[in-house]
Amino acid sequence: MRQAGMIWLTGVPAAGKTTLAGLIAGRMAAVGVPAEILDGDAFRKAMCDDTDFSREGRARNMRRAFEVGWLLAKNGIWAVIALVSPHRAARQAIRALAAERGLDFIEVHVQCPVDLARRRDPKGNYRKALAGEIQSFTGVSSPYEEPEAPEVLVDTALLRPEDGAALVLKSVAHLMGK
Amino acid sequence: MRQAGMIWLTGVPAAGKTTLAGLIAGRMAAVGVPAEILDGDAFRKAMCDDTDFSREGRARNMRRAFEVGWLLAKNGIWAVIALVSPHRAARQAIRALAAERGLDFIEVHVQCPVDLARRRDPKGNYRKALAGEIQSFTGVSSPYEEPEAPEVLVDTALLRPEDGAALVLKSVAHLMGK
Repeated sequence: MRQAGMIWLTGVPAAGKTTLAGLIAGRMAAVGVPAEILDGDAFRKAMCDDTDFSREGRARNMRRAFEVGWLLAKNGIWAVIALVSPHRAARQAIRALAAERGLDFIEVHVQCPVDLARRRDPKGNYRKALAGEIQSFTGVSSPYEEPEAPEVLVDTALLRPEDGAALVLKSVAHLMGK
Repeated sequence: MRQAGMIWLTGVPAAGKTTLAGLIAGRMAAVGVPAEILDGDAFRKAMCDDTDFSREGRARNMRRAFEVGWLLAKNGIWAVIALVSPHRAARQAIRALAAERGLDFIEVHVQCPVDLARRRDPKGNYRKALAGEIQSFTGVSSPYEEPEAPEVLVDTALLRPEDGAALVLKSVAHLMGK
């Protein structure tokens, strides 16, 4: 059994991370490469999360997702992690951990202008955040620090989801061919 | 890829859960059955655990271990979980979740008289608990509620670790042959 890697999707809420994660994992499974999605709210819920959305709370949630992803990856299952992960330092800490453990790591910046994300707002969270009903909401009351050198950039304002997924899968194929 | 199952080792501290988990996972790996261990303190640490050892804190930690084990098992990796898990109701909740998801589940009571565990005390935790330096320590200041109908009973006062592991592996083989 060969160790798998980790794909980390970062971007503002409603940027399209979940859609992309689904397409990536689905396409991998279709060609016999096992992959598991760890996705934002669902992951927090499954982990009985008691952390808040402060800088520290988010970092802790990211660390948890990393550790779970690591358990999967070391057993040959690609981990596709979709978390806002808005803070650069926390993302760098995750990347450092991956390097330490010899884990293939693909950071994907799922880019979307915040005003477009606000218009999409499939869960109604921007609306709630703007109304003050959600605190520390990225893109409204909490900053998103853009990745400086992600392995892949997917601009969801320009690309269809399938085309965005194809970009990520190209990097995966590259790593698998190493 | 066929779904794997979950082996849940419960017992007082120093009963021998970690030793048993290592032997079980090692023997499985040796015959090409992938298995991953989620073990007490290491698991709490990896999950950046902020829960205490209260009844609720333990239940939350158990739920987390279950969810991580589930992610592994649904991808064909056996989850070998070693947690004191002293409370019957919390164990029953885990068993119910496993049943709900159609997950093969083997509860193993790693049995050891508390006075023998206190004499073993490889981590020195009983000593610390008796000195009042650790609170809510199972077997000293917190009860262990024995399983009523575990799938396997391993009495570590009587059996060599290899023979205990063999008992568990028999149940695994039975489930895999279903």
